[in-house]
Amino acid sequence: MIYFDNSATTKPFPEALKSFQQVSERYYANPSSIHSFGSETEKLLLQSKKQAAQLLNVNQEEIIFTSGGTEGNNLAIKGIALQHQNRGKHIITTTIEHPSVLEACRSLESLGFEVTYLPVDEEGRLRVEEVKNAIRNDTILLSVMHVNNELGTVQPIEEIGRIASHYPKMFFHVDHVQGLGKLPLDFHSSHIDLCTMSSHKIHGLKGAGMLFVKRNTSLFPLLHGGSQEASYRAGTENLAGIVAMVKALRMILDKQQSQYRHLENLNKQLRDCLKDLPQVMINSPEDSAPHILNFSVPGYKPEVVIHALGEKGIYISTKSACSSKNADESAVLSACGHQFKRSSSALRVSLSYDSTKEEAKTFCEAFKDVMNQLSEVMG
Amino acid sequence: MIYFDNSATTKPFPEALKSFQQVSERYYANPSSIHSFGSETEKLLLQSKKQAAQLLNVNQEEIIFTSGGTEGNNLAIKGIALQHQNRGKHIITTTIEHPSVLEACRSLESLGFEVTYLPVDEEGRLRVEEVKNAIRNDTILLSVMHVNNELGTVQPIEEIGRIASHYPKMFFHVDHVQGLGKLPLDFHSSHIDLCTMSSHKIHGLKGAGMLFVKRNTSLFPLLHGGSQEASYRAGTENLAGIVAMVKALRMILDKQQSQYRHLENLNKQLRDCLKDLPQVMINSPEDSAPHILNFSVPGYKPEVVIHALGEKGIYISTKSACSSKNADESAVLSACGHQFKRSSSALRVSLSYDSTKEEAKTFCEAFKDVMNQLSEVMG
Repeated sequence: MIYFDNSATTKPFPEALKSFQQVSERYYANPSSIHSFGSETEKLLLQSKKQAAQLLNVNQEEIIFTSGGTEGNNLAIKGIALQHQNRGKHIITTTIEHPSVLEACRSLESLGFEVTYLPVDEEGRLRVEEVKNAIRNDTILLSVMHVNNELGTVQPIEEIGRIASHYPKMFFHVDHVQGLGKLPLDFHSSHIDLCTMSSHKIHGLKGAGMLFVKRNTSLFPLLHGGSQEASYRAGTENLAGIVAMVKALRMILDKQQSQYRHLENLNKQLRDCLKDLPQVMINSPEDSAPHILNFSVPGYKPEVVIHALGEKGIYISTKSACSSKNADESAVLSACGHQFKRSSSALRVSLSYDSTKEEAKTFCEAFKDVMNQLSEVMG
Repeated sequence: MIYFDNSATTKPFPEALKSFQQVSERYYANPSSIHSFGSETEKLLLQSKKQAAQLLNVNQEEIIFTSGGTEGNNLAIKGIALQHQNRGKHIITTTIEHPSVLEACRSLESLGFEVTYLPVDEEGRLRVEEVKNAIRNDTILLSVMHVNNELGTVQPIEEIGRIASHYPKMFFHVDHVQGLGKLPLDFHSSHIDLCTMSSHKIHGLKGAGMLFVKRNTSLFPLLHGGSQEASYRAGTENLAGIVAMVKALRMILDKQQSQYRHLENLNKQLRDCLKDLPQVMINSPEDSAPHILNFSVPGYKPEVVIHALGEKGIYISTKSACSSKNADESAVLSACGHQFKRSSSALRVSLSYDSTKEEAKTFCEAFKDVMNQLSEVMG
């Protein structure tokens, strides 16, 4: 099997899964229980938070454990909006955010908020000037993703953050789900107030995530109840999932250090192969994050290509898994200004550090075969 | 170790943990991915939902998988309130609900909703008449728990549901977190519209839960994004946690059938032992759910008793783990009308089907020892 759908989800690191199992077996007490068995699990929870904070170079009170990326994005966006609506009800985001950002914003529109969706250029890049021009007196939130999940396009977060820092009434949220473990992001120098991360995109387990919330930033919780996570996120902590996530975080950051070049090489190898095919139009910019390569095959139905590759044990995707049950067209490519023929025939290859040259080669050959096969059928 | 804190959380069934591991290793694809690996995981997800629905005797579209009980309660309460606020902004609940219900209601008060908190009698029981009298023209939600988490008191859900059914504009939500796998609850004959369940209270893993949402009941989602869970709960599904939860559900319902009497016997054994102690006042009613036994030792600090028992490897709790980091007094016992001396010295023993007679006996002896020891110190 060649699994090239790592932006949808990743295979858990065996080490992370082992941690999950050990914690579930040995440290199953509720961290809120006051007996010593509960205290042990609470200690482990605090330790995990401390480690996560160290790895991300933030303070431990600035990490909120969540159930995943979608919760993180919703908590950041709705949490700021509902808590600070007396300051203003205007939000700025982009047209190519993840559905969990876009739909959270749309839900706020139904509650009386106003949202500006900034356009992007043909490669999915936000122009910093546009951000500046969109900020109003009543703008309370700016939400921009770091790495686009379909294209791999990297937004100039540090530049945008510098602008944002001039508007102290406005919070700056970054969806870092696709960037974590691939591209460095300094939350402080980028003036980020809130930053979403997910466990299962970095080889941790599903059902866990983190939201960075800068000190002194107050949120309206989505989940009220007990005083877990400084009352920002009630509910018995998924300690096993948390410990596994922190383990995965440590491992992926190590790999980012030592194997980033490997991803770049694989990306180049795939690009070189695809460039030669007349049916292919590459959508990801040259300087995109190296683990994502998006391209279109106008005239071909992407699910047909995907199923043909699937029969050879190769798994790639169309657009975001979170919107892939909808119509064929990619909203991201459409927002980049591409015509329907291109935006409705997009394929995404997404790599992990464990992907190999041989896999990339096998994929290329299989993809050429599939193209030939389908061309014959279509001809 | 004697673990008598099963209402805070339970030890995962080895079978559930094994399922979690197998799914994480083999079925890690995103169920929303359209390749065949994704389809396999989607099939497993649908199968799990079907099984859960069969076990609960509901339709499979009526089950929403969540991250746990706190999310379920928040989604039910805020989801109904935000979605149906044009019908009215009045909510009814009781004074002894779990913090995730009470705080969710309080958060809605800050958004302009009005909440009636119904009083309970000395044993924590809601009078059905009170419910009837509280319903107004603008009441959109009634939320009552099945089994109280501190006392084990069982509310007359079927009777309350019968009343609720006369008010079609009002939704009826039941927090069934402590009742599931202990006491039967027929969602249909009880006219329940929404019902919250949690995985880690039935020996599943933390980070998973279910919300029953009756057909044609619309909710404002807490987590917007992808179209997972019929768009009521976006986010990549925690499939491993879901499969493990359904496995645990099947097992606990089997035990409910075959071993309920065992819990009753253990409860009686503990009651008989505690009744003989002059320092002890039993708070749980005679007809409470048998897995929970709450009692006070006025004059003794509960955390001192808990730590003394902890030194002998016996783990019991004070009040709800979700509120146990706050002051000593139990809000539930206080709402029952007990004086501070009694409501601030409460202890809770909570059993599982795996608890044994021998453990109950050992606990009794240890508890007597601790009482003697502390009396001497205090004397």
